[in-house]
Amino acid sequence: MAGLTQLAENDVFMAFASYATIVLSKMMLMSTVTAMYRITKKAFANPEDCASFGKGEAAKKHLRADDRVERVRRAHLNDLENIVPFLGIGLLYSLSDPDLSTALLHFRLFVGARIYHTIAYLTPLPQPNRGLAFFVGYGVTFSMAYQLLKSRLYL
Amino acid sequence: MAGLTQLAENDVFMAFASYATIVLSKMMLMSTVTAMYRITKKAFANPEDCASFGKGEAAKKHLRADDRVERVRRAHLNDLENIVPFLGIGLLYSLSDPDLSTALLHFRLFVGARIYHTIAYLTPLPQPNRGLAFFVGYGVTFSMAYQLLKSRLYL
Amino acid sequence: MAGLTQLAENDVFMAFASYATIVLSKMMLMSTVTAMYRITKKAFANPEDCASFGKGEAAKKHLRADDRVERVRRAHLNDLENIVPFLGIGLLYSLSDPDLSTALLHFRLFVGARIYHTIAYLTPLPQPNRGLAFFVGYGVTFSMAYQLLKSRLYL
Repeated sequence: MAGLTQLAENDVFMAFASYATIVLSKMMLMSTVTAMYRITKKAFANPEDCASFGKGEAAKKHLRADDRVERVRRAHLNDLENIVPFLGIGLLYSLSDPDLSTALLHFRLFVGARIYHTIAYLTPLPQPNRGLAFFVGYGVTFSMAYQLLKSRLYL
Repeated sequence: MAGLTQLAENDVFMAFASYATIVLSKMMLMSTVTAMYRITKKAFANPEDCASFGKGEAAKKHLRADDRVERVRRAHLNDLENIVPFLGIGLLYSLSDPDLSTALLHFRLFVGARIYHTIAYLTPLPQPNRGLAFFVGYGVTFSMAYQLLKSRLYL
Repeated sequence: MAGLTQLAENDVFMAFASYATIVLSKMMLMSTVTAMYRITKKAFANPEDCASFGKGEAAKKHLRADDRVERVRRAHLNDLENIVPFLGIGLLYSLSDPDLSTALLHFRLFVGARIYHTIAYLTPLPQPNRGLAFFVGYGVTFSMAYQLLKSRLYL
């Protein structure tokens, strides 16, 4: 399994693996935050989820959209929309033999920006906190995409 | 192309490729289920989709949210939120040279849990069927993330 | 780092990297289009986003769903639902040593179909333009999944 050993000896790839795992774990925590707010705010999307609150009208009033819950869901969807490109482009970028310190700068900026984005979204902090966090992550991903396409375009 | 041959000889990687393909194909079927319900329930999101039902008011009444359609869409979004981390973390985990039987246990539990989650969501089965299915998949992904970060952290 | 050099010498993998980067960049542009419409239509999802329009009722009336904004968001979500399987299945397919011209046909059809899907969704073009674009991308991904599972199933 020399191929795998070589990947494991590749610092850029190992760094990408670590940062990708961290940012994906952060994204997964959004599910728990959503569930937590759904339970404390008693605001559910499915009838079977609030069956324990009684039957008929007593349960039905919990089938509603709550501001806090919707806010977490928007933050979660924004994570998906931005972390998916980071995963795909970042993996291919890591395999394209970039400079280690440049790559680390990209990964650290992205993960830091997405964590700050979540804090800014959930607190919520006044704009442009969330907007700037979004654009840092966005710019980092485009920067990796640009370097990939510049050096390795094969159409 | 020795590197690729080595990947193809790596049992964990080949198993990951098979399970990932199966769970992604299952996720893609959700689009077809949504389309099916949109057509049978005549509930569409875009004016151009119900143009064949006539013009003006006749078509407009089909621009609505239907409970069954929204249920499938929530199941689909939940798939996305959980399968994306599985793909990213699972790929990196597969390349980190884990024990084959441990890796197979992770992949099988995840795919089984997501299929059961879809059944529980669409039937719908009473809680905690869906909740348990969700937490099994969630726990499996975190377990892979933990093993990755424990053995290979590079920040 | 022979393993990486081998990947870089693999034409199918390099082609996948290029097409995946292009289709992910296209998907990321949807965020900018959403932001653009939110600003021109003055329709926001978060109170802090329209704080600059004044306080109280003056700002609150901009917390609304706009048809154009929702259309872009649906196109973006449809991208996510279809590009995630393409990324996962396409990466594994690229590593399974397929015929170069067959692989290129798959990648080109997928990327072309998704670009046309976005045009058809945002214009909007009458159906079945968007429907056909969707099914071409969908079929291409299933075709890659089928070839992967046929040649390499390991459960």
